[in-house]
Amino acid sequence: MVYIGIDLGGTNIAVGVVSEAGSILSETSAKTLAERPYQEVIRDMAACVMKAVTKAGMTEADIVSIGIGIPGVAQGDSGVVFNCTNLGWINVPLRTEMQKYINKPVFIDNDANVAALAESYFGVSAGYKSSVMITLGTGVGGGIVINGRPWAGAHGRGGEIGHMTLVPDGAPCTCGNNGCVERYCSATALIRTAKQECYSFPDTAILKKAGGDINRVNAKLVIDAAKEGDASALRVFNSFARYLAMAINNLIWFFDPEIIVLGGGLSYAGSFLLDAVRGLIPCHQMGKPLPVPPIVLARLGNEAGIIGAAMLGK
Amino acid sequence: MVYIGIDLGGTNIAVGVVSEAGSILSETSAKTLAERPYQEVIRDMAACVMKAVTKAGMTEADIVSIGIGIPGVAQGDSGVVFNCTNLGWINVPLRTEMQKYINKPVFIDNDANVAALAESYFGVSAGYKSSVMITLGTGVGGGIVINGRPWAGAHGRGGEIGHMTLVPDGAPCTCGNNGCVERYCSATALIRTAKQECYSFPDTAILKKAGGDINRVNAKLVIDAAKEGDASALRVFNSFARYLAMAINNLIWFFDPEIIVLGGGLSYAGSFLLDAVRGLIPCHQMGKPLPVPPIVLARLGNEAGIIGAAMLGK
Repeated sequence: MVYIGIDLGGTNIAVGVVSEAGSILSETSAKTLAERPYQEVIRDMAACVMKAVTKAGMTEADIVSIGIGIPGVAQGDSGVVFNCTNLGWINVPLRTEMQKYINKPVFIDNDANVAALAESYFGVSAGYKSSVMITLGTGVGGGIVINGRPWAGAHGRGGEIGHMTLVPDGAPCTCGNNGCVERYCSATALIRTAKQECYSFPDTAILKKAGGDINRVNAKLVIDAAKEGDASALRVFNSFARYLAMAINNLIWFFDPEIIVLGGGLSYAGSFLLDAVRGLIPCHQMGKPLPVPPIVLARLGNEAGIIGAAMLGK
Repeated sequence: MVYIGIDLGGTNIAVGVVSEAGSILSETSAKTLAERPYQEVIRDMAACVMKAVTKAGMTEADIVSIGIGIPGVAQGDSGVVFNCTNLGWINVPLRTEMQKYINKPVFIDNDANVAALAESYFGVSAGYKSSVMITLGTGVGGGIVINGRPWAGAHGRGGEIGHMTLVPDGAPCTCGNNGCVERYCSATALIRTAKQECYSFPDTAILKKAGGDINRVNAKLVIDAAKEGDASALRVFNSFARYLAMAINNLIWFFDPEIIVLGGGLSYAGSFLLDAVRGLIPCHQMGKPLPVPPIVLARLGNEAGIIGAAMLGK
């Protein structure tokens, strides 16, 4: 018996057949083409599932369940996608529509929650009773796992760390609010402040690495320049790390998970990032030591989307 | 069979014998006298328990368990008080010490978590699967309840909403950090900003209500002046409500509980406070409606400390 995991993105649909032990036995993918009616997108998702199952030498009868990670707010109970900005989906009955093609239990959840679940089953947070994973990419996502189950909150809004307010009246966010975590702790934010540094200090190693073309500045290049000790890059990186530490410290004071996992593109910075963040989390209160959960890097990479979605059915 | 609930404060020890249905059958209390060795405080707690049990016409055999709410960080698993600033306790083996006198299961948890638990059993959040209670008093406390159990986090630090950073580099906090929620959303904060208003606008109704004596300004008086429409009092109150809404909005984005409960002294402001806060919580994202948990007032008042502590043993 196998679990189907679907990673539904704004650009691609990735489908995997996942074993009990968390191995991906076969994979298929298709373009999302999100501007189409949702019925067509879901029809293609179902076709990808059947292709992947056949590829793994199996049939529909071998499927236990279908789990789907979506880039938006899911209502797990009803199987409805409440709101999915990248896809332009509002109140899409994803479960019902999928079951028109494959009559199996269908579970849906936010993609960051799903990644957190994958790490807690087969990754760096395996064996921990509670974990929070923060996905540092173009935006900032978050996922909470409690006793092996994803916590999406009572209305599917849980774990949206990226839209917690970090700076009152701060930088405007695409969500309509101001000062969101995403505006200070994402690759987008890192690149934005790096470009400002390039304008102020044109001799920075950031600009050199970008071949003098400010439009080619990316997060990897800023991190590399910071690792090499470039003053501008370090300023940008340290400011980023300070905001990230503040956001993490807030999660600890509120939720105090057993372990905190950092994933997404910016986790490329590795121990350079971990060391900076760990050093900025307060570990005393009025002179008394405070316990601080371990902060570690995600292990599963891109596969977390498929594996975690599959584990929704476990 | 009855449950013992102990509300351990910096000034008083309050003990209650609580029925299965959440009624307090008898109560006793004693001064904490926190400067004594902890052994003496705990001995007096045990004596209060036995007195309350006798007063209820029962014996030790009728006790199911003893639950203790403490004003600090508890380690539920080991029964040790990790850190309790008001009492000057560090690593106090509360469970072991209590069991020297009464050999029953002993449970300990933070006092705000315990109040949240009481509301979820017999108060305003009864019947909800998840809740967060925010205690707005001299400081700001918080309690999380998931499926009828308090969530104190993996290291007993969970629910400490008061020390989440609300304003980076903001007002210094007694905890050693800056810009904590407690510095903006407590009675202390309300009084501080009200006093500043009194200096700037000596004709404010706040000062009149205080008989012209700025040292007599308290939270009730500021709230009353705001309700009556005094411009200064409204400025103070609206700033307070705005920060509180920001803190609550952060909890929704991260945890998304089914219901949010406001308790503590400042809940005196009643629907005046609720209306202000509800109106300031964003309920749209990119023009799409977002679900927002109901925000309500606590119902149990001071009894929540004893009742919730008792329910730790359920």
